[in-house]
Amino acid sequence: MAEVPLTFPYDEAQRLEPHLPPLSTRLTNSQATEEPSSLPFVTLTFATSLDSALSLGPGIRTALSGPGSKAMTHYLRSRHDAICVGVGTAIADNPGLNCRLAAADQSLDSSPPKGGLPFETAVTTRQPRPIVIDPMLRWDFTSASKVMQLARAGKGLAPYIITAVPEPPAAKEKLLNELGGKIIPLSQLPAESSTEPSRRRFDWRAILAAVHDEGLHSIMIEGGGEVINSLLSSDNSELLDSVIVTLAPTWLGQGSVFVSPPRKTGADGQSSAVARLTNTTWIPLGEDVVLCGKIAR
Amino acid sequence: MAEVPLTFPYDEAQRLEPHLPPLSTRLTNSQATEEPSSLPFVTLTFATSLDSALSLGPGIRTALSGPGSKAMTHYLRSRHDAICVGVGTAIADNPGLNCRLAAADQSLDSSPPKGGLPFETAVTTRQPRPIVIDPMLRWDFTSASKVMQLARAGKGLAPYIITAVPEPPAAKEKLLNELGGKIIPLSQLPAESSTEPSRRRFDWRAILAAVHDEGLHSIMIEGGGEVINSLLSSDNSELLDSVIVTLAPTWLGQGSVFVSPPRKTGADGQSSAVARLTNTTWIPLGEDVVLCGKIAR
Repeated sequence: MAEVPLTFPYDEAQRLEPHLPPLSTRLTNSQATEEPSSLPFVTLTFATSLDSALSLGPGIRTALSGPGSKAMTHYLRSRHDAICVGVGTAIADNPGLNCRLAAADQSLDSSPPKGGLPFETAVTTRQPRPIVIDPMLRWDFTSASKVMQLARAGKGLAPYIITAVPEPPAAKEKLLNELGGKIIPLSQLPAESSTEPSRRRFDWRAILAAVHDEGLHSIMIEGGGEVINSLLSSDNSELLDSVIVTLAPTWLGQGSVFVSPPRKTGADGQSSAVARLTNTTWIPLGEDVVLCGKIAR
Repeated sequence: MAEVPLTFPYDEAQRLEPHLPPLSTRLTNSQATEEPSSLPFVTLTFATSLDSALSLGPGIRTALSGPGSKAMTHYLRSRHDAICVGVGTAIADNPGLNCRLAAADQSLDSSPPKGGLPFETAVTTRQPRPIVIDPMLRWDFTSASKVMQLARAGKGLAPYIITAVPEPPAAKEKLLNELGGKIIPLSQLPAESSTEPSRRRFDWRAILAAVHDEGLHSIMIEGGGEVINSLLSSDNSELLDSVIVTLAPTWLGQGSVFVSPPRKTGADGQSSAVARLTNTTWIPLGEDVVLCGKIAR
């Protein structure tokens, strides 16, 4: 599991800064302060093709964006207390869910760039906490799962799993607890019997409140498709403080896994756009572009 | 039909220049030269939401991109001999298909910008020729159709309609001919009986050769969805010299008219991306971005 440390250029970090949680909310062990809000700062981030595809198909890992995008993802992780994926992504990708920036103990404030060279930016000695949304505890993780290996090696944290199962299996809980993770049962999570998939799994206010109750004041939500479409829907988009989308100049074509939130229809039966970003910044990154913005209210 | 003249900033025109037909191929009456290629320079251009939607639904005109995008579209029209839409767009939108730049008789070469003000850029005294792809002659245009009114007023040209109908109705032909347009029957256009919609209507090599035979050495293809998906498919994308996509930072949601070309599956049954752009330039334009690139071979 040799992981190559990543670096991210200072200039690009500076351009992202207005779209990230305030540095003061990124807690360290000695800096916990009271927050007025009972919900964390939420950043939704993902990468798609021009035809809004996340991958060629369910469970197919698809290389979309260039190498600069990977470093950016890990920089963004360094700027949040927690990173979140849905159970589908946890199962399909066996993700590491850690931050691999080269100098994770170096503060963004400490060193201005020297001679325009990329410098290693991070803001904390702490890894972000992985959060996995798994209503039915379908994720069959073991001590060999990548995120567990990284936690054991001190290169990441063990996940918190948010579930609707009131009494999780003891073996799963023990494995998690030994590495510092836990299972968080949440009674507000509806059962999976609902017929509408996008509403079935996620009560985002309850989830985000539970995350905040754990002392995690910012969360970066990374996917997959069902999570993203649910958060962009008109029911939930007001919970988003920032949206960061990487676009790769490719078309994956019909049959892909698409980002396309459920249609919004007004009281008059007229359709309108589901969500729109304002205060946009477009940052070219290799052949790709990174779009940062806020949901228009 | 009071149309407001548009202006387009010189700086943005300069950034688009590498993605446009060489100025020497934009013919004027006195400049006709022989061309080595038997096909025109083809620019595919359209605007979508982040979820790759052209509109909220078939026939629903949907405001996507900001005001800068409209001026750019008319600037691009000024840089091509012909502009092309499919019959669906002609029927749904009653489009003008002309160039409304303020100074259509001013050369791009003549005036550098003064004091950074937007200046009125155009490269020719000629309007682009509208081309409508209408295999079954479904477009029921009249002398009141917008494109005909503009042609009569000297603010645009009457369309050339490319069709598979061998003997067009005399009345339609007469109306077109009086304004300088014509119907071009093309035997290579397959009948609409084919079962695969994206292959049904368009033999793009035959269409583009016919356009070139008319002395039109560059064409900007604007839509709609079926035309775009057909041109981006692996059968046709090599015909594209340039692709210019405007992206608006919005999601229209499920049920929209989407750009998503038919899936490409290799001989081994493995899927891969349908098309990819290289040599990309991303130009922020208000809240939107304009992506220019070439299809990777």
